[in-house]
Amino acid sequence: MIKVIIIGSGNVAQHLIAAFQDSQNLGSEIELVQVFSRQTTNLSHLLDYDKITDDWNTLAEADLYIIAVSDDAIADVSSQLPFKNRLVVHTSGSVSLNALDDNNRKGVFYPLQTFSKNKAVDFKTIPICLESENATDFQLLDKVAKAISDKVSAINSEQRKALHVAAVFVNNFVNHLYEIGSEICQEHQVPFEILKPLIAETADKIMVLTPEEAQTGPAKRNDTATIEAHEAFLSNENYLTIYKTLTQSIQHNGKKL
Amino acid sequence: MIKVIIIGSGNVAQHLIAAFQDSQNLGSEIELVQVFSRQTTNLSHLLDYDKITDDWNTLAEADLYIIAVSDDAIADVSSQLPFKNRLVVHTSGSVSLNALDDNNRKGVFYPLQTFSKNKAVDFKTIPICLESENATDFQLLDKVAKAISDKVSAINSEQRKALHVAAVFVNNFVNHLYEIGSEICQEHQVPFEILKPLIAETADKIMVLTPEEAQTGPAKRNDTATIEAHEAFLSNENYLTIYKTLTQSIQHNGKKL
Repeated sequence: MIKVIIIGSGNVAQHLIAAFQDSQNLGSEIELVQVFSRQTTNLSHLLDYDKITDDWNTLAEADLYIIAVSDDAIADVSSQLPFKNRLVVHTSGSVSLNALDDNNRKGVFYPLQTFSKNKAVDFKTIPICLESENATDFQLLDKVAKAISDKVSAINSEQRKALHVAAVFVNNFVNHLYEIGSEICQEHQVPFEILKPLIAETADKIMVLTPEEAQTGPAKRNDTATIEAHEAFLSNENYLTIYKTLTQSIQHNGKKL
Repeated sequence: MIKVIIIGSGNVAQHLIAAFQDSQNLGSEIELVQVFSRQTTNLSHLLDYDKITDDWNTLAEADLYIIAVSDDAIADVSSQLPFKNRLVVHTSGSVSLNALDDNNRKGVFYPLQTFSKNKAVDFKTIPICLESENATDFQLLDKVAKAISDKVSAINSEQRKALHVAAVFVNNFVNHLYEIGSEICQEHQVPFEILKPLIAETADKIMVLTPEEAQTGPAKRNDTATIEAHEAFLSNENYLTIYKTLTQSIQHNGKKL
C-alpha cells in the first residue's frame, strides 16, 4: 500500500479526502492514513476521528504528504513538518515547487478544477498536473493520481503557471461575464433562465469545435450597426468598457487570421 | 393544420426547418408548407425539391411567414412579400419588430441559441422569445413555437434587446475568453484539453448556483500577489488589458455587495 497524508481541511482537501476514500473502497493500493488540520471539526463528516490530528507530534509516517492549504500558507506549513527527506507536495496552480521547504523532497499535485462546497464533482474527470524533482517521486505521484483521476499529466512549473492564468480566463472571467449577463437581465425584467441553454451550448461547442471555429456574433462579423446599438444600450460604464475591450479583441483576432 | 413558410436558408433557417419537420413527423398540427430561398441548393439535403422556391410569384399561402435571414436583409425581404395583412415574423435578437414592412402583421420569433452548421442541437431545449402586435397573433405564434420548443416566452422588443446584449456577454465574449485560454496554452506547450473539464464545470455550476455564489479566483479574494504574478506573466498587451479590466470589474462587484 502507498500511504498518503493530507494536510488541510478546505475545499480542495475535502474533495481529495473523498476521492481517496472512494478509491480505497474500490480496492486501490492507496491508503489515506491520516489528515492533519487545525480545524478538525471541518472534517468530522468525512473521516473517523482517529484519522484526524491537529498535533504535528502525532503525525503518522507516510510515502506522500499532500499540503492542501491556501497559497500563502504553503511555505509556512511545509517548514513546520517534523521530518526530513520525505516526499511533500502542494496542490496549488500558482505556487512554485520551490516554495516548499528544502528539508523534504518536493512535488506538485495540482487538480485543475473549480471546487464548491455545495456541488459534487466526479474526481475521475479532473485533470491532475504533476511535478517532482526526480523520476522515482514522479512515478509514485503518478500512481497516486491515477487512483483518483483518469487525466494525469506531467506539467512543469512554467507550464503550470500558464495553465493557471488560462484557467483564470476560462473560469473566473467567464463566470464574471455570466454575472454581467445576469445583471443585464435583472435590470430589464428578463429571467436569466432564458440564457442558460445558451451558456450550456457555448461550453459544449468547445468540446468539439476550436474556439476560433465556434466564434460568432457582431464583433466577429464586423456588424457595426449592432455593436453601436449595444454600446448605446449599455448605461453601466463598467460593462461598456468590457464590451468595447472584448469586441476590439475579437476584431483584432479576426484580422490576424 | 397551421401552415408555416420559412424564408431563408442560413443556419437559423436550416435548424428551424429540421425542427418543424421533426415535430410534423411526431404528429404536430404545424405544417411546413414551403421554404423560400435564393440559394435553393443549400436546402436540397433537408427538403423535397417541390417544397422549395426561389420565386416570389410561386409563394404559397400560409398562416405564418418566418423570415430567417441576416439582420440587415430583414427590412428589404419583408417589403418584397407579394401580399398584405398576413402574419410575418423575423428571427433576430437585435432587430426591432418595426423593421418589418407595414404591409403585414408583425411579430418576432427569436430562438435564443448559438447555431453551428456542424453541431446538432436539441431544439426542444432552446428558448423561443415571441412578440406580436396583437393577442390573436401571439396565440398562433405560441402554438407554433410550442410545437418545437419546451421553453417559450413573451419578450417585448426592449427585453429582447437586453437579452441580445446579455447573450453577447455569455456567448460571444465567453467563447473569446476560451480562445485566449487556448492561445496561452499553445504558447506554453500545454494541451488545451486539460482546461476542458474546467470549462464544462464552470458552465455547469451556473445551472445550480448564482454567478455571485460561483465566483472564485484571485480577483474575488483580492489576492494581490497572484494578480501581479499573472500580469507579469502576460506578455500579450491585449490579453493584459483584458486581464486588468475583468479583474477590476470583479473587485468592484465585490465591494458593491
